[in-house]
Amino acid sequence: MKILDKVNSPEDLKKLTKDELPALAKEVREEIISSVSKTGGHLASSLGAVDLTIALHYAYNAPKDKIIWDVGHQAYAHKILTGRKDKFKTLRTHGGLSGFPKRSESPYDAFGAGHSSTSISAALGFAVARDLQKEKFEVVSVIGDGSMTGGLAFEGLQNAGHLKKDMLVILNDNQMFISQKVGAVAGYFAKLLTGGKFKKVEEKVMKTVSRFHSFGSPFGKLIKRVKVMLFPGMLFEEMGFTYIGPVQGHNIDNIITILTNIKTMKGPVLLHVITKKGKGYEPAEENPEKFHGVGKFDAATGKTVKSNGVTYTKVFSDALVKLAAYDNKIVAVTAAMPEGTGLDKFAKSFPKRYFDVGIAEEHAVTFAAGMAADGLKPVCAIYSTFMQRALDNIIHDVALQNLPVVFALDRAGLVGEDGGTHHGAFDFSYLKFIPNLIVMAPSDEDELSRMLKTALQSGKPCALRYPRGAGAGVEVNNNATVLRIGKAKVLSEGKDVCILAIGNHVSTALAASKILKEKNIEAAVINMRFLKPFDEEVIFSMLAKTNKFITVEENALSGGFGESVKSVLSGTGAIVKSIGLPDKFIEHGNIRILREKYGLTPENIAETAVNAIHGKK
Amino acid sequence: MKILDKVNSPEDLKKLTKDELPALAKEVREEIISSVSKTGGHLASSLGAVDLTIALHYAYNAPKDKIIWDVGHQAYAHKILTGRKDKFKTLRTHGGLSGFPKRSESPYDAFGAGHSSTSISAALGFAVARDLQKEKFEVVSVIGDGSMTGGLAFEGLQNAGHLKKDMLVILNDNQMFISQKVGAVAGYFAKLLTGGKFKKVEEKVMKTVSRFHSFGSPFGKLIKRVKVMLFPGMLFEEMGFTYIGPVQGHNIDNIITILTNIKTMKGPVLLHVITKKGKGYEPAEENPEKFHGVGKFDAATGKTVKSNGVTYTKVFSDALVKLAAYDNKIVAVTAAMPEGTGLDKFAKSFPKRYFDVGIAEEHAVTFAAGMAADGLKPVCAIYSTFMQRALDNIIHDVALQNLPVVFALDRAGLVGEDGGTHHGAFDFSYLKFIPNLIVMAPSDEDELSRMLKTALQSGKPCALRYPRGAGAGVEVNNNATVLRIGKAKVLSEGKDVCILAIGNHVSTALAASKILKEKNIEAAVINMRFLKPFDEEVIFSMLAKTNKFITVEENALSGGFGESVKSVLSGTGAIVKSIGLPDKFIEHGNIRILREKYGLTPENIAETAVNAIHGKK
Repeated sequence: MKILDKVNSPEDLKKLTKDELPALAKEVREEIISSVSKTGGHLASSLGAVDLTIALHYAYNAPKDKIIWDVGHQAYAHKILTGRKDKFKTLRTHGGLSGFPKRSESPYDAFGAGHSSTSISAALGFAVARDLQKEKFEVVSVIGDGSMTGGLAFEGLQNAGHLKKDMLVILNDNQMFISQKVGAVAGYFAKLLTGGKFKKVEEKVMKTVSRFHSFGSPFGKLIKRVKVMLFPGMLFEEMGFTYIGPVQGHNIDNIITILTNIKTMKGPVLLHVITKKGKGYEPAEENPEKFHGVGKFDAATGKTVKSNGVTYTKVFSDALVKLAAYDNKIVAVTAAMPEGTGLDKFAKSFPKRYFDVGIAEEHAVTFAAGMAADGLKPVCAIYSTFMQRALDNIIHDVALQNLPVVFALDRAGLVGEDGGTHHGAFDFSYLKFIPNLIVMAPSDEDELSRMLKTALQSGKPCALRYPRGAGAGVEVNNNATVLRIGKAKVLSEGKDVCILAIGNHVSTALAASKILKEKNIEAAVINMRFLKPFDEEVIFSMLAKTNKFITVEENALSGGFGESVKSVLSGTGAIVKSIGLPDKFIEHGNIRILREKYGLTPENIAETAVNAIHGKK
Repeated sequence: MKILDKVNSPEDLKKLTKDELPALAKEVREEIISSVSKTGGHLASSLGAVDLTIALHYAYNAPKDKIIWDVGHQAYAHKILTGRKDKFKTLRTHGGLSGFPKRSESPYDAFGAGHSSTSISAALGFAVARDLQKEKFEVVSVIGDGSMTGGLAFEGLQNAGHLKKDMLVILNDNQMFISQKVGAVAGYFAKLLTGGKFKKVEEKVMKTVSRFHSFGSPFGKLIKRVKVMLFPGMLFEEMGFTYIGPVQGHNIDNIITILTNIKTMKGPVLLHVITKKGKGYEPAEENPEKFHGVGKFDAATGKTVKSNGVTYTKVFSDALVKLAAYDNKIVAVTAAMPEGTGLDKFAKSFPKRYFDVGIAEEHAVTFAAGMAADGLKPVCAIYSTFMQRALDNIIHDVALQNLPVVFALDRAGLVGEDGGTHHGAFDFSYLKFIPNLIVMAPSDEDELSRMLKTALQSGKPCALRYPRGAGAGVEVNNNATVLRIGKAKVLSEGKDVCILAIGNHVSTALAASKILKEKNIEAAVINMRFLKPFDEEVIFSMLAKTNKFITVEENALSGGFGESVKSVLSGTGAIVKSIGLPDKFIEHGNIRILREKYGLTPENIAETAVNAIHGKK
């Protein structure tokens, strides 16, 4: 019988002896590797945090004590140890466990996550609420070195340092951001580990912690003062935290001792733990970037299943490199996602014109605005969901000054298994109202390439949004001309109904028109191309032929493309049926399942058209 | 003849002897005080930065060299010295000079501002662009101690420290955030000045800087290492900056010397300058908070002209304190704006339940989410324009988890003289698409009070947005019941046209209906109250009587309230004319002038209604 079989809750975990914990860790890792090889997921970070997680649940009493995982990439062991072991095989599948901590899923998930750098702020919220309400519990936030680069983490740290609440921030330093190290803080972390002093420092920490424990608080205060000189955590000490570390994060016994002692300390404490991303699974240890977020793979060999087709990301990546070869004013900015955004290729081709600013979307945009103000042509590639972070920077620093920054919003629309925190469901809505901004969405790979060219030639702030995954396989014509800004393209004429589509659902609309043709219904299909400026003219030209319209978009209907169409056609009496995402947070699951559920299929478009023609709701 | 009369550009300034500069500073201060007493403006910060500004334009060659002002509260002397002296009397008036740096206004305004903490990111953008394009110029960002608390500033600092570009960040520390000190970094800054060591440190700095200059770079490198031990700027040194300071910021001669020497240094430098907010004007020195942003005042006495009427801010302030007296779960969060948001009263009444987190809107929201997750009822009061910073936190941390945080968005709609960077023109558009969120806008003071009560009782995430300035003087009934969520109120019936208004323009709509009555037109007037959930029912009930609709809102039409109405009425053939803000950044100027220009008047509503009835465009 496996040890894990006996562990259905942190209570069960505490019944184990400390000697049993390393074996448990091994079993948890096996469970994670086995499951994630079938479902895909954030493997490497979760493997690295297994020992730390066991120590945490051994030392603390969740759910009374609040353990808050930043981002949630590292929370799989936490899920397995808190009663979700049996469901773990459903991870990231539709109706199954979420890939991230989620309050509605378990009382052990004190605070949901998905985006980076929120955990310190949330933890401080819990600590303040606890003290005001005279409750008694511990608050721990676990944050990676990558997430620590976000401005929000800094804001949280400094407010926590000021309020002096009892709370623990564990800096889970796996010495590897989502991609390579960037930013001064990364250098700072690295410095803490250099010069062969790590081991010595760790010994000192262990000694200090035990001494502190035996001598009690007044001595502890002295130690705190001295420690600033002894230990290298000045940055955090200056922020008002007691810094402890760095310590090795895979010795469960040591960590439990440290955590237990920290519980007796007053005020905010930062524990700096060094872990190895991918720990315990050779392929992931050797290639942690590949196994950061991974699709299905062969658990025995670590070989990933090759996905079919060329992704939009790859098309963007290639197109940008081609354009940049002829225009040395083009520079590229990513917020810690060179592989995800496809900028890794640009980085290799033009290292001096490439900037990874860390997980700092706000800075990425304002930094790009500064470069544009001095005549460069920055392309800022950030996922749709993460660009929500930089709304004010787009408005205040780019659009208001009419600076030619190009925003490449990858993962727009449904992203599938990552779910509600990650769907790019809102970008049309949060970009549409921004004056001066041009907003476009390509219907296929070739159009993405043309739109990028168009954006870079426009000399204006432009956003282009395109989906996760592969397109239909349309070939890219590199010599294609730029598009006329604000002009839609009529793909087929038809007198019975007009389907207005934008982005990746132009092809769905075309497929729908074929279904309709079989029913002897002639559907016009328009590729709208631009959400802004909006081609009202083409819509009115269609109105001369039909007064039945269907709109299709993979964005929230609220504030989106469909509303723009309804607004244009207001007062004409035209019937407009809009297909898009409803006003709720969309759950996780396979994109195909989600598209079917929310009607983004040729069949549903066709049915909606038939109903519109027959005057049905 | 005044010295200032001879200075029409930084070139002229450089023709003066250093001895003449203090007298020039005095004249610039007189000019600022005289003008701002008539126009209102950001007086105290600008007065504090006069000497620094003169030194900057003496030492640097703008516009070739780029001087980037953070926020821009301190840039009046800069405007006066860069050819805008004669226009300075038009400051903040419609068609006159902007109250903030603005690229379209002058080549000396290298980067526009208005919101906080952007200058380091922008400066880094310039520095990178300069080096890539092999240009030669200096880049200086001037940032206040308040702005330095923003996460964006931290992101900028750490990226700059990493890229090691030649640039100077001047921390203009006036030892006073917009309000009182908050956050660990404020404490850190304070520590740098304590123990009577300031004077000694300053002497050391002056010595080091001169020595550095005479010995050249290799010695400079040594000094840099030693300086970390000598001087107290570890926080910045850890981020990769060479820290110099603190130095007194009113000795123009000294600052010029320091700046001149810094120009010879390599890599990013942070110069920490201590200035006095309000310097040179006794009323402002004594009461810098009052004179931070001030209306018209008597220059001789400093007495401000009392504004008429009770502001929405005051109504919110009073209502919150009353509700909080009966419910100790209510807590309040501000991002460095206790006076502006009216939370100062709450702070006095319930100091333990009040949190000023510094200029850190993102953290404010996620921190509030954490408190709500532990059962508190946080009210997060942030101006509409600054809440743009926290969009992702509202979506990801509050709405997605359905946590009961109340967002009080003051300064929604037009704010007047502060202009394009500050109008609350977009909140309807950026809140409307967020699932789970309730969005409301009060039509008068009493309704604001009721909406706050409604929000706090709802147990759901709620946003209420209300305008700058005074309401119509409607009395607040403290015993009023809560509102039915999502229900509009029919204010008058009418068969000819229906005016749907939301927020402060319900009264404008009522006034319009009176004008229409004189023309024998019966207008229904609806106070919509909720943008979300949206009362479709009331709109359809009106459609039974008329098919002419007018919508009125003080928000961008794009993605706003009018579009929601058009969407609801789509396919009915109803004529909907929407009045609101056009798709452009609205200029600065008196609110009354702007409302007239953009048609937010009873007369325009009435005229639009008449045209709708007569079928005119």
